Amino acid sequence: MAGSTLGTLFTVTTWGESHGAALGAVVDGCPAGLSLCEEDIQKYLDRRKPGQGKYTTARKEGDRAQILSGVFEGKTTGTPISIIIENEDQRSRDYSAIKDCCRPGHADYTFDQKYGIRDYRGGGRSSGRETAGRVAAGAVAAKMLAELGIHFTTYTKAIGDISIPDGAYDFSQITENPLYMPSRSHAELAAAFLEECIQKQDSAGGVIECRIDGLPAGIGEPVFGKLDASLAGAVMSIGAVKGVEIGDGFGAARSFGSLNNDPFYADGPAVRKKTNHAGGTLGGISDGSTVILRAAVKPTPSISREQETVDRNGNNVRIFIHGRHDPVIVPRAVVVVEAMAALTVADLLMVNMSSRLSGIKKFYRDL
Amino acid sequence: MAGSTLGTLFTVTTWGESHGAALGAVVDGCPAGLSLCEEDIQKYLDRRKPGQGKYTTARKEGDRAQILSGVFEGKTTGTPISIIIENEDQRSRDYSAIKDCCRPGHADYTFDQKYGIRDYRGGGRSSGRETAGRVAAGAVAAKMLAELGIHFTTYTKAIGDISIPDGAYDFSQITENPLYMPSRSHAELAAAFLEECIQKQDSAGGVIECRIDGLPAGIGEPVFGKLDASLAGAVMSIGAVKGVEIGDGFGAARSFGSLNNDPFYADGPAVRKKTNHAGGTLGGISDGSTVILRAAVKPTPSISREQETVDRNGNNVRIFIHGRHDPVIVPRAVVVVEAMAALTVADLLMVNMSSRLSGIKKFYRDL
Amino acid sequence: MAGSTLGTLFTVTTWGESHGAALGAVVDGCPAGLSLCEEDIQKYLDRRKPGQGKYTTARKEGDRAQILSGVFEGKTTGTPISIIIENEDQRSRDYSAIKDCCRPGHADYTFDQKYGIRDYRGGGRSSGRETAGRVAAGAVAAKMLAELGIHFTTYTKAIGDISIPDGAYDFSQITENPLYMPSRSHAELAAAFLEECIQKQDSAGGVIECRIDGLPAGIGEPVFGKLDASLAGAVMSIGAVKGVEIGDGFGAARSFGSLNNDPFYADGPAVRKKTNHAGGTLGGISDGSTVILRAAVKPTPSISREQETVDRNGNNVRIFIHGRHDPVIVPRAVVVVEAMAALTVADLLMVNMSSRLSGIKKFYRDL
Amino acid sequence: MAGSTLGTLFTVTTWGESHGAALGAVVDGCPAGLSLCEEDIQKYLDRRKPGQGKYTTARKEGDRAQILSGVFEGKTTGTPISIIIENEDQRSRDYSAIKDCCRPGHADYTFDQKYGIRDYRGGGRSSGRETAGRVAAGAVAAKMLAELGIHFTTYTKAIGDISIPDGAYDFSQITENPLYMPSRSHAELAAAFLEECIQKQDSAGGVIECRIDGLPAGIGEPVFGKLDASLAGAVMSIGAVKGVEIGDGFGAARSFGSLNNDPFYADGPAVRKKTNHAGGTLGGISDGSTVILRAAVKPTPSISREQETVDRNGNNVRIFIHGRHDPVIVPRAVVVVEAMAALTVADLLMVNMSSRLSGIKKFYRDL
Repeated sequence: MAGSTLGTLFTVTTWGESHGAALGAVVDGCPAGLSLCEEDIQKYLDRRKPGQGKYTTARKEGDRAQILSGVFEGKTTGTPISIIIENEDQRSRDYSAIKDCCRPGHADYTFDQKYGIRDYRGGGRSSGRETAGRVAAGAVAAKMLAELGIHFTTYTKAIGDISIPDGAYDFSQITENPLYMPSRSHAELAAAFLEECIQKQDSAGGVIECRIDGLPAGIGEPVFGKLDASLAGAVMSIGAVKGVEIGDGFGAARSFGSLNNDPFYADGPAVRKKTNHAGGTLGGISDGSTVILRAAVKPTPSISREQETVDRNGNNVRIFIHGRHDPVIVPRAVVVVEAMAALTVADLLMVNMSSRLSGIKKFYRDL
Repeated sequence: MAGSTLGTLFTVTTWGESHGAALGAVVDGCPAGLSLCEEDIQKYLDRRKPGQGKYTTARKEGDRAQILSGVFEGKTTGTPISIIIENEDQRSRDYSAIKDCCRPGHADYTFDQKYGIRDYRGGGRSSGRETAGRVAAGAVAAKMLAELGIHFTTYTKAIGDISIPDGAYDFSQITENPLYMPSRSHAELAAAFLEECIQKQDSAGGVIECRIDGLPAGIGEPVFGKLDASLAGAVMSIGAVKGVEIGDGFGAARSFGSLNNDPFYADGPAVRKKTNHAGGTLGGISDGSTVILRAAVKPTPSISREQETVDRNGNNVRIFIHGRHDPVIVPRAVVVVEAMAALTVADLLMVNMSSRLSGIKKFYRDL
Repeated sequence: MAGSTLGTLFTVTTWGESHGAALGAVVDGCPAGLSLCEEDIQKYLDRRKPGQGKYTTARKEGDRAQILSGVFEGKTTGTPISIIIENEDQRSRDYSAIKDCCRPGHADYTFDQKYGIRDYRGGGRSSGRETAGRVAAGAVAAKMLAELGIHFTTYTKAIGDISIPDGAYDFSQITENPLYMPSRSHAELAAAFLEECIQKQDSAGGVIECRIDGLPAGIGEPVFGKLDASLAGAVMSIGAVKGVEIGDGFGAARSFGSLNNDPFYADGPAVRKKTNHAGGTLGGISDGSTVILRAAVKPTPSISREQETVDRNGNNVRIFIHGRHDPVIVPRAVVVVEAMAALTVADLLMVNMSSRLSGIKKFYRDL
Repeated sequence: MAGSTLGTLFTVTTWGESHGAALGAVVDGCPAGLSLCEEDIQKYLDRRKPGQGKYTTARKEGDRAQILSGVFEGKTTGTPISIIIENEDQRSRDYSAIKDCCRPGHADYTFDQKYGIRDYRGGGRSSGRETAGRVAAGAVAAKMLAELGIHFTTYTKAIGDISIPDGAYDFSQITENPLYMPSRSHAELAAAFLEECIQKQDSAGGVIECRIDGLPAGIGEPVFGKLDASLAGAVMSIGAVKGVEIGDGFGAARSFGSLNNDPFYADGPAVRKKTNHAGGTLGGISDGSTVILRAAVKPTPSISREQETVDRNGNNVRIFIHGRHDPVIVPRAVVVVEAMAALTVADLLMVNMSSRLSGIKKFYRDL
């Protein structure tokens, strides 16, 4: 299937393997007239760049994004924006350990089962590196949304058991620590915890939270194209994500209707909600309040410890995955979650424009 | 957008409002040659039927499914299967309470914002009643999958804080209690808890779990069409669902790589996993073990208590939603989650058939 | 595949067999706020109704369209519009002649090959009767487009060799003759020609032309979603259509650049073209002039003469298809071509709204 | 819209402008296990390469295709195949003549109207050069289909009024003349005719015919996803194509049922047709005979003569389009038509695999 394309009007198609010549994305349906340059994309890409600290891998690739089409004289033209990122770090390696056996927690086994063939170099298409294309595309979506006053705040809410309570956020801290946590004290605790993980040749997971501000009410399509459903599908498509919540999420399942319902009130001519347990959607459509989503990220499957698995000949074997591994991928996945959210919102925002005949009439009368 | 259609090869389009003349679904892409009768659909629909106990509304509609096309002499023909369910219970009501103000926790406000018009009778399209069409379609998907040895076990894992631990399941109990819980003792506790909710004019939520057995390895398309991503999007599109997990889900975020990775071992010629923290998918592709997903269901938003809201003129008002309300919708949503899972799996199973050239060659040589 | 759904934002899904219980269409994505009643659809359906004259079959079904959802208090609500047409004329028949052998020119053989099973009653899903659903949906699209000042003029340009030259049209005649020809004299010639066909137990084909006026410039998406490409795909999906042209079509292939290029000129502030060989599109995008398309319709395959074919056992046999047959289906297909054009234009008109960032900004600022 | 993506299972997304840095295609959904190298693509690209004779432009770009992903050790892996073609011939030019006014017969005006901005260098995205991406992708589809015994024969049937009658084909001649005509004498006549066009600073059009052999019966999805409808949409999306026919096409409109119906007969166990007026499809599904389609190509809009148009300030002006122009683009478009046909057939062939439950069962049992 065209599993590498997402979206209806604002779409992205990603391509590329971890250790191939290059990887990239084609953004199709971006409206004409958006100021866009490679630096806009680079800023986003740098947020997921490896080699930024002790908690991320040492791979020193530059991840330089080039725009090959769709931008003319600094503006998007409405035609496909092709973004390419060359793989600079392709030195020949020894893949013998992973070529013939399936790493636990990785997609080696399932790619083999599905395709009968697998680019075993660094995980190939199933590598987290594939997300570079998503992030490049997400940068375009986010740039467009910023022009409409829609902004994203995305951060690490939890690493392992160290979770920042909702009331304790200090968003100014997000960029002050390599874990992107909005709390200095929690970032320090998490750093110590990760240090332990490294000592134990183990890895940890965590929770990423994304807040979308400035989104007008009305975005999302009943019944299968709901905003929350689309966000859930998009965010769960990130390889390491195992759970997605909107608003109170699983907490809502333990609440009561009298508490969980958000009362409306009049704020001058505007209608607002006293609380936001719903996380900014009602019936899957944005209600004008902040959209809040969370993603559960599993512990990095690549660990230095010996693990049990099976080789291609069906023998039980033990595997050591050499190299330095991220003890946690949560910080690097923060921008990936944001990118997926931005792509989803950009698409549904466009789709919503045709919801009312009066809107269509006005649009064409004003042309 | 075509928000009412889901799927690529095996698709469903639902239509209909809560209190309109009828509602239904069109299943397109169901393969030819499947034995199918109205009773197959009815069995599924009966699992979500209201009026079955004290925890569900008293609405006594028959919800009789009729097949209008796509089946000939007891077999599907490959053409669209149109299923219609007439709304029998359309007596005229007094909608004045909800016509001009927005019920908290419902989609009244967002539908108004999106469309400028709203069928206020019983929630219209945003009513849980819309899921009848999904369930009817899901019955077709489940029937097809059963022919391939793929089976679903879906149940209530938790009501409010009463949650059945993983080790304590007794699946034989699922149909023995009106809450569809696989534990007699937990079902009793939950029943008592719901009794309290009713006394307090309040409502509760819960967690639904779905297990998919018999699924071959290889189902799911990288990178956006992953099995888990597709399941998450489909299940989150159920109005009351606020969170979705695969395998250990948010628990994985608190685990360690050394624990969370499922070791492979050889079981004769078969490759199996010693544990299943992943919930049956690796890299978003089925690995041959049981697929496990959970959905968080929010408390029923319709409660008998007085609530605060705003009317169409922008006045702060208090609203009473008359009528008997389900104190919990979790039991009725069990089959809806199963239907969404079945529709998703049926679609991706078909899509997977073209993954390998050797498979395509064999298919056409054997024709 | 979901072969029964067409469109991206304004979509239609049709269902139903020729002699099943009913057939219908679900229109999803129609904007909210359009005045719509069953009579709007009926008017369209009546244009394809059989039994209106000697050139069409005697089947006397009422073809009454019912709207089951998506319309509330006379206006569309933005939710799916389900339209059903019951098959009134289902008296039991003798299908033995067509049950076990394949009618030449029909889809019996290919449905058998594809599905291994076939609803042989009246052609099942491959019957021209399937177009009733399309026409019902097209009526909704045309109603919406009329609100935007976009109008369709569709007629029979040719029956067999009797073709009305471009300069000889009298559009006021279209509804004055049962062949929907915009020329009284040609309609008379064609009537005489069809009389001959009936005498010879033979059938004829013809050409339908559709003109779309009032379409703003800019509609159509490069490169695969072009307006002309979308129209061609939609119109060619009508069973009997074997060719589609835009503007001068095949005539352009015999022209010269110096003649075929339409010169632009300034008409006050407006830009117009001196000629319209292009048929209203340049690069697949509407240019503001009249869009002109033509469809070649093959002779009715059902004829009373004895024909050669093969039965299910592989024997060469002779077949007589009993009953009265249309000597020509062109007149009844006129509204089907128009419906397909209207559905295509409605969809692309909505899609075009997100082409420019400035348009999106203005839309959301004005909300 | 995602107008740059085509297909359901076997998809292509093209990107790139005529004079941008590069252009390319992403093929997603190609099955794993296909032998593929850059030379396979190059052979196809060379067929549309400019500068091959006096009838094509002198642009001497190499059009070298590089594969950046999706192929590992000489085989496709099932992941997206990214193909890039760098634009070598980007010397700075004088675009002043076309920057501020709209060339007749080109998409300058409509791109301006749609997007408000336009990459005026060589037509940008609307240039025929965009088809390089399609052809590269089509090469992959054709390679896959060849493995299944499905072959394409595509050629110039007519240049201007010089048309080869159906009975006069000599397919061995196709590659023996620069016009790709299957008739030596017609190729000579056409060459002389084009010489005249050049003298007159004019251009000509023509007709391309494509024959698809080896296609099994059953390919194509009722009702909107028909094989002929999909082919028509795909081929009409080529910028210069103004008409598409299947089988006898517009000729069928002038025929009679008794002649146009293709009688079936038994050829041993096989069912065949005595004639093939239908062009290989019945009810939009392949019938096992040769699929035949024709495309009408308009005269090259770029001609050296002075033409009338309007500039951006609304003034009537005269325009000279400098440079050497193809007097005809038909020969170069031959492979583009073939590519579009191959992409369409590859996609529908895969989609067809899920038509029957028995086929699905067998597929999964055999896995």
